[in-house]
Amino acid sequence: MQPSLIHINRYRVESFHSDCTSHLSLAVLGNQLLNTAADHAEQLGFGRQALLEKNQAWVFSRLLIQMDHYPYEFEPYAIRTWIDSVSRFFSNRNFAILDTEGRAIGYASSVWAVIDLDTRQALDIKQALPTHADCISPEPIDCPIARTTRARVTADEPAYTFQPRFCDIDYNGHLNSIRYIEHFLGALPFEVLKERPIHRFEISYSAECHYGEPLAVYVSNADDDEYDLELRKADGVVASRAKIILRN
Amino acid sequence: MQPSLIHINRYRVESFHSDCTSHLSLAVLGNQLLNTAADHAEQLGFGRQALLEKNQAWVFSRLLIQMDHYPYEFEPYAIRTWIDSVSRFFSNRNFAILDTEGRAIGYASSVWAVIDLDTRQALDIKQALPTHADCISPEPIDCPIARTTRARVTADEPAYTFQPRFCDIDYNGHLNSIRYIEHFLGALPFEVLKERPIHRFEISYSAECHYGEPLAVYVSNADDDEYDLELRKADGVVASRAKIILRN
Repeated sequence: MQPSLIHINRYRVESFHSDCTSHLSLAVLGNQLLNTAADHAEQLGFGRQALLEKNQAWVFSRLLIQMDHYPYEFEPYAIRTWIDSVSRFFSNRNFAILDTEGRAIGYASSVWAVIDLDTRQALDIKQALPTHADCISPEPIDCPIARTTRARVTADEPAYTFQPRFCDIDYNGHLNSIRYIEHFLGALPFEVLKERPIHRFEISYSAECHYGEPLAVYVSNADDDEYDLELRKADGVVASRAKIILRN
Repeated sequence: MQPSLIHINRYRVESFHSDCTSHLSLAVLGNQLLNTAADHAEQLGFGRQALLEKNQAWVFSRLLIQMDHYPYEFEPYAIRTWIDSVSRFFSNRNFAILDTEGRAIGYASSVWAVIDLDTRQALDIKQALPTHADCISPEPIDCPIARTTRARVTADEPAYTFQPRFCDIDYNGHLNSIRYIEHFLGALPFEVLKERPIHRFEISYSAECHYGEPLAVYVSNADDDEYDLELRKADGVVASRAKIILRN
């Protein structure tokens, strides 16, 4: 049986998968997007294990989530995913988040590279994964989210500082991709996040962060609806950028 | 159909459900124990929603996890749960964690109270939930873990301080029960946790913690294998105690 070019995982908002508003937390949603992507890639023959055997790995570069509304605690939801396009170094994977009726309540898009684990350099995807090009969805599928725009941060003082702890660190020894999301949210005013759902969240990853290193989140608040954020290392290097747009 | 007095949920170690050792993280395991308990309680007719309609809630008081080994990333596992016993104010729910062959790789026990949401006082469980007593497993089921012992902390200086952020807070406005586990682990030496699996983890909850309040974890290290921990508020009140015993 040919693996499907469109894959669906079904979830439910479990205990502690909701945030203080009782809706699915953005970090858990991000995690389930990655789980759905991982399952699909595995079915298509280029999952994490298959790449590891060739001394390669997927590297997660960008994520954009745009939600009309979030599932409530204990509510089921589904995530549909497909590969939208590929360039020399990047594979673009899209997602639709579906309610119990199968209606889209949000969309997401993600950008991935394949690296060689020795050189840590990005590989030409067509050469590294010859079957990948055949796995792109043959017809364009609706994923109506605008292109990613660059966060612009002018703040001089950090809104929040931290040092990654044991539970922040993944098997690579780096701050895990989902924890970046949690730390960015941790830098925003609690009362605002409690009252206004996040309509749009964009994140890009540019440098790895390690256990115990001092990190700081800088926030610029262009208007009441929009926050631009940077995660900076002690030497000023930007490890990640994010943009958060709140619901009106 | 009568709901079963023994309930099983099946899981898999998904992406970011593993820690930096590539094994199921203790915090995610704790979360899945609570999910399994929640599903079973719901089937038995006294789930969160049923209690909420009577202005009551389950309060999680203690958890003890003892593991022989942890599932590896992407490995399936199952959690079996049953109500072991009940006293006037406390319901004791046990768990077995099973590998793909159905063999127990660990056990857990938990203690729960039912509170009135207005008075925040514990209720007599027999009165509050008349059907609960009929849901105790009729025969004792093997759960070979020793009784909980009290952590003894003599440290004067905190090992780690933090202030709960947005992603730490649950729908009650409190630090969520699973985040306590993560913050306790965050207070232990990274290199130790990376090298030695946690054989046994005990936690008791005694006071609620809120967004932004300064919290400190104090650690006493009785011997190389055992850590006693306290989470204290700024006024010295102990919000939670934990004991961590590492594998030999």
